[in-house]
Amino acid sequence: MRGGSEAPLVSTLEKAELNMNLDALYSELTLKPSGKLALVVLDGLGDVATREQGFVTPLEAAVTPNLDALSKDSAQGRMLPLAPGITPGSGPGHLALFGYDPLEYQVGRGVIEALGLGMELKAGDVAARANFCTLDERGIVIDRRAGRIETSVCERLCALLSSKVKKLGETEVIIKAGKGHRFVVVFRGKGMEGPLTDADPHREGFAIPTVQPVNAKSVKAKKAAKLVAEFYKAALPLLGKEKPANGFLMRGIAHQPDIPKFQDRYKLRPACIAIYPMYKGLAQLVAMTKLEGHQTIAEQFERYLAEYDNYDYFFIHFKYTDMYGEDGNFAAKRKAVEDFDAALPILLRKKPEVLAITGDHSTPCVIKGHSWHPQPVLLHSAYSGSDKLERFTETGANCGSLGLFEAKYLIRLMQANAKMLDKFGA
Amino acid sequence: MRGGSEAPLVSTLEKAELNMNLDALYSELTLKPSGKLALVVLDGLGDVATREQGFVTPLEAAVTPNLDALSKDSAQGRMLPLAPGITPGSGPGHLALFGYDPLEYQVGRGVIEALGLGMELKAGDVAARANFCTLDERGIVIDRRAGRIETSVCERLCALLSSKVKKLGETEVIIKAGKGHRFVVVFRGKGMEGPLTDADPHREGFAIPTVQPVNAKSVKAKKAAKLVAEFYKAALPLLGKEKPANGFLMRGIAHQPDIPKFQDRYKLRPACIAIYPMYKGLAQLVAMTKLEGHQTIAEQFERYLAEYDNYDYFFIHFKYTDMYGEDGNFAAKRKAVEDFDAALPILLRKKPEVLAITGDHSTPCVIKGHSWHPQPVLLHSAYSGSDKLERFTETGANCGSLGLFEAKYLIRLMQANAKMLDKFGA
Repeated sequence: MRGGSEAPLVSTLEKAELNMNLDALYSELTLKPSGKLALVVLDGLGDVATREQGFVTPLEAAVTPNLDALSKDSAQGRMLPLAPGITPGSGPGHLALFGYDPLEYQVGRGVIEALGLGMELKAGDVAARANFCTLDERGIVIDRRAGRIETSVCERLCALLSSKVKKLGETEVIIKAGKGHRFVVVFRGKGMEGPLTDADPHREGFAIPTVQPVNAKSVKAKKAAKLVAEFYKAALPLLGKEKPANGFLMRGIAHQPDIPKFQDRYKLRPACIAIYPMYKGLAQLVAMTKLEGHQTIAEQFERYLAEYDNYDYFFIHFKYTDMYGEDGNFAAKRKAVEDFDAALPILLRKKPEVLAITGDHSTPCVIKGHSWHPQPVLLHSAYSGSDKLERFTETGANCGSLGLFEAKYLIRLMQANAKMLDKFGA
Repeated sequence: MRGGSEAPLVSTLEKAELNMNLDALYSELTLKPSGKLALVVLDGLGDVATREQGFVTPLEAAVTPNLDALSKDSAQGRMLPLAPGITPGSGPGHLALFGYDPLEYQVGRGVIEALGLGMELKAGDVAARANFCTLDERGIVIDRRAGRIETSVCERLCALLSSKVKKLGETEVIIKAGKGHRFVVVFRGKGMEGPLTDADPHREGFAIPTVQPVNAKSVKAKKAAKLVAEFYKAALPLLGKEKPANGFLMRGIAHQPDIPKFQDRYKLRPACIAIYPMYKGLAQLVAMTKLEGHQTIAEQFERYLAEYDNYDYFFIHFKYTDMYGEDGNFAAKRKAVEDFDAALPILLRKKPEVLAITGDHSTPCVIKGHSWHPQPVLLHSAYSGSDKLERFTETGANCGSLGLFEAKYLIRLMQANAKMLDKFGA
């Protein structure tokens, strides 16, 4: 689709050098930690003001005395998760917040699911999101979720497959049950990569398609595709007599990319305080320490207090703004913001030197899904300055001193506010 | 304290690929059309508020009830035509609006003039903007416009040249008369490119300079320059006895770059509803269908209504804001905005799913010409949200949710608002 013969003004090489230089520069300027940094993500926080809702967003409609108090001493702005108009999944949304260019580090869904189940992946592992299904006698998918079998059944079937299919040639096969009919398969071997097409017809009435490399030229992906076919050959017969879970589908088949560790990149000891598997998985992808055992935002903030001395950077994830945005439930999303606000004073008992509160993307109620709208961000530190905004809202953030910027730069602003970025040049 | 040794994360080559990837990513995410997209360009719309005019811009001074009503349900922002401080011509200004990086796709004035006259250029054609002039007996230019001869004279002279100079070697020569003393020459051959320096002293009292390649190293440009010299050698004697048009000047000599077609790039059937040749030419450059036969903005909007079902994307161009800005005529520019506003309800009878109203650049009255000031943009859709701005103005747009962004991304935002861009990543 690209342009044809006209030569770009800046040569490919020059452009590449320019890009590389910025990352290298940040690394070079990065100083040792001083103080604590906290990134608090209200998933899907951003929204849009529509006529139907009286021209306010859930964040604007919410009663948020604690955020309001904080906003008086904070800078605000809006962040592009990736690039104008692009709606990110949770993976790219969070990687950007962690300071990794989501285009540079693409992570397939299978990898994220595996990480979310607590599997310790290695760079090069190929992972697939899988689930049991029901096949008829001709191999046609007649129920893509196998009647949503119980988790206990799923665990038994995964144990069965695990015990019988441990290796395929030199490649190790690791299977782990998830919730309900879901599980994950990891292939640990050499010389493989994703992405592959799905072993899933995506609707009932069709057979399970054979997977193919997305990039037909990739030798590594061909090897991975061959292995998935071998796995089906070995595993499907083992389920032949099961009811209703006599088959399985595989999606999002991809390899774990080699992502630099957060601690190496920023010289910060990072901790993840999330509840949902996917976000723990995303944190693990950049080698954050996952803290466990909390079930509410209040408990998450308490955990932060307890672990305050042990880490330099805390990633605290709050799911419900996204969940209710996906439902299109304005009142519930507003209430989720209020619940968050009510718990916020716990965090502030030991206020981090740098506190960023934002979303990984917007999930507008009117869209009932992720969107491309820049998410609002609030940045608070002794050096953030005040944008003189009485509240933290999308509309206010439009006029904030941070302006509109790519989310991958947030961590650089946090570093700067922690005085962890040295001066450039004399 | 410095970091130091950290190796760059990604190799030079990989980074270059990443850059390319953003365009590729947009292509990959582009979905089939749903609904109509309209780009309405008030040429040179942006302006600056000066003390002399009571600190308002023409857009702010204008009475615009229809734009005001629209703005309540719209997002706003400001767009950099190209990069900070760069004042674009109409070519780069519009190419950016069509989503093409103006640095990547450079189009010479000769090419634009040829397209504006309805000539069907091919990639690689070299085109020159030309006009008849008066030379004295020594070949000195004594009237750069040959007394502004009538169009009919111009047409006769062009026919004369066309009949005598059809080919130069293997290269085809195509000549077309414009208005008054103006015409266009196209050289259609192989292995040529622009840009060349002008065959125009740009003032009277000097001879016509010999053209030279702008890039002295370009073999293709040398060939083109040689051809222009041959053309002068063949054509000038044919005019020897004419009065006053016994010579001609050539400017903006350039080749047509190979630009990907709009429809291929965005999966949208595009139509151009412009009045002035240059804008039709620019639309043709990306292979939009040019609709003809309208003379006023009201007629242009009527035409949009009539063609509503036949296209997915409408480019509607309004010239007068730029024209009066160039004149430095504040009152007339304000009136042009009001005329536009009065016609707007015609368009809104069949409101497009996504409507963008903006300029291709600013033409501030105080500058009497194009400028580098970011133009304001209004974006309206069911998902644009409201920035709670009561009016569409430069000052209001500064606080819009779209922020300040490069104009080439506008179409991506339009695609997103039409739900024509798929989600990226899981």
